[in-house]
Amino acid sequence: MAVYTDVAADELADFLSHYDIGELLSYKGIAEGVENSNFLLHTTAGSFILTLYEKRVESGDLPFFLGLMTHLALHGINCPQPVQNRKGEALGVLAGRPAAIITFLEGIWPRKPNAAHCAGVGRVLARMHLVAGDFAMSRDNALSVSGWRPLFEAAAPRADQLQVGLRAFIAAELDFLESGVWPRDLTQGVIHADLFPDNVFFLGERLSGVIDFTFACDDILAYDVAICLNAWCFEPDHSFNVTKARAFLNAYGRERKLSEAEEAALPLLARGAALRFLLTRLVDWLNVPPGALVKPKDPLEYVRKLRFQQRVASVRDYGLTTSGLVA
Amino acid sequence: MAVYTDVAADELADFLSHYDIGELLSYKGIAEGVENSNFLLHTTAGSFILTLYEKRVESGDLPFFLGLMTHLALHGINCPQPVQNRKGEALGVLAGRPAAIITFLEGIWPRKPNAAHCAGVGRVLARMHLVAGDFAMSRDNALSVSGWRPLFEAAAPRADQLQVGLRAFIAAELDFLESGVWPRDLTQGVIHADLFPDNVFFLGERLSGVIDFTFACDDILAYDVAICLNAWCFEPDHSFNVTKARAFLNAYGRERKLSEAEEAALPLLARGAALRFLLTRLVDWLNVPPGALVKPKDPLEYVRKLRFQQRVASVRDYGLTTSGLVA
Repeated sequence: MAVYTDVAADELADFLSHYDIGELLSYKGIAEGVENSNFLLHTTAGSFILTLYEKRVESGDLPFFLGLMTHLALHGINCPQPVQNRKGEALGVLAGRPAAIITFLEGIWPRKPNAAHCAGVGRVLARMHLVAGDFAMSRDNALSVSGWRPLFEAAAPRADQLQVGLRAFIAAELDFLESGVWPRDLTQGVIHADLFPDNVFFLGERLSGVIDFTFACDDILAYDVAICLNAWCFEPDHSFNVTKARAFLNAYGRERKLSEAEEAALPLLARGAALRFLLTRLVDWLNVPPGALVKPKDPLEYVRKLRFQQRVASVRDYGLTTSGLVA
Repeated sequence: MAVYTDVAADELADFLSHYDIGELLSYKGIAEGVENSNFLLHTTAGSFILTLYEKRVESGDLPFFLGLMTHLALHGINCPQPVQNRKGEALGVLAGRPAAIITFLEGIWPRKPNAAHCAGVGRVLARMHLVAGDFAMSRDNALSVSGWRPLFEAAAPRADQLQVGLRAFIAAELDFLESGVWPRDLTQGVIHADLFPDNVFFLGERLSGVIDFTFACDDILAYDVAICLNAWCFEPDHSFNVTKARAFLNAYGRERKLSEAEEAALPLLARGAALRFLLTRLVDWLNVPPGALVKPKDPLEYVRKLRFQQRVASVRDYGLTTSGLVA
């Protein structure tokens, strides 16, 4: 959750005077989104989200994020839409920060995802991979393999404060993933890269939308699948739920069939995905800024997930028959 | 800001199934309210606030708060209304905590209150004092004079960590206020006791509502006036703004004239009000619970205000001519 920056009413009124979204009725800082400050606005025209992009987000990347949301929506993916001001700009400045207004999506993110939710996310992930295929912009993934060692070096000196042996555990995994094993020939495209449950809304079991594209980038499509396996298919007690994984992977496969090479790489990609979130969580954990209204997420959850993925021999362990759907 | 407790969608759906407020469309933890966890709900019937009362609030007091809001609204004060479930109950249990749904008030709290806002709050404070006169329930003020020494004792050993000499400064003020000077014969009634800018909503300069009655109690009415003087009439640089104070006091006086005794006591009541918020902020500052998504408010702001109030000779120093309105 995050509200790093509060906004004065008169500043906001001034900002909104450049938009055609009615009169402001209320705005509340909301406890969602870790990277940015988010406010839910009510106006006479409806509900909107105002995002102030904090310094962790490169402002040069914002046109990519906003353009991607527009592109996805044009192709049937329900996601927030950037609202343009009267000059046709989707990006402005408020309280000294890049700021954008997007449409508000109704829906509830599942605190306890079930297999139906996992199927929904599999389907929408594959749909996004397909329709983003002709999105014209690109953005490197700063948090892919080459981005992990700097994170490790930032966290390593204090990693054992969290768990004895953690530094050595991460070092060994990082050495392994950097040793040339990371796949180079898998299909690339635009990935969401952060499709955790709090970024997918449902009304009942029907998926109503996808939010938060601030990590979206170009990378291996199957890496996005691996991120979701970690994010959606473990129970709170850290056990892996094969029923959910099968529902997720089958739903994905019905929209976009994974190649044999993608399937074969999935366990390795899932190790990388686990390490990536372990590292960023660890850095965040060790560097909570004073006064930040944010509760860091538990890095050890991803130690457990990484240990699981290290033991996975093939996609059969996820409940999927190699190169084929299971009914 | 606060979201101490998250709520799972299925728990919330179960809770809402006992209410006639339509289908849940979304809920967001919001960054308002320090004592409780608050969520903004959108349903097919409109917007509502769900409050989970955390342990600092005595559950036995909740009927008083909810009853007071109903009473005030019946008498023309725009404040949130408790929503009853189908059994006619305004109070339930959710996520192990007492929970209530109240109507959502549109409006914006003024980050930079001007004299018009101060006049608005003066008027509504007096109106509340008048219409609460026949409210049948009562609640002691646990944070009146007798409640201050326990707070001081909790904070004293570490008070000088915040500012050298703070412990002695507070001790002297507390000794003074406990020495029999606190007024005993002023008109008592139901006071809001926490009418800070973030609890008063405006649309433009028109006051649209008053929220957060979790400190409401029976006490000296003029003490509520003193709390507002401290909360509304100082500038961010800690200087006292006589224009705002005059606007506030005159607007109050047009609805409910302060007696000579109340006017004479106001500087002393304002010292007490400053000490009360200094003490609670100090305790909060020294005891931020790990993981609490809350930024403690600055106790030293109230040291400055207390020092100002210690030098006030009479209400003339607030811009008010003794026992009379200034045009």
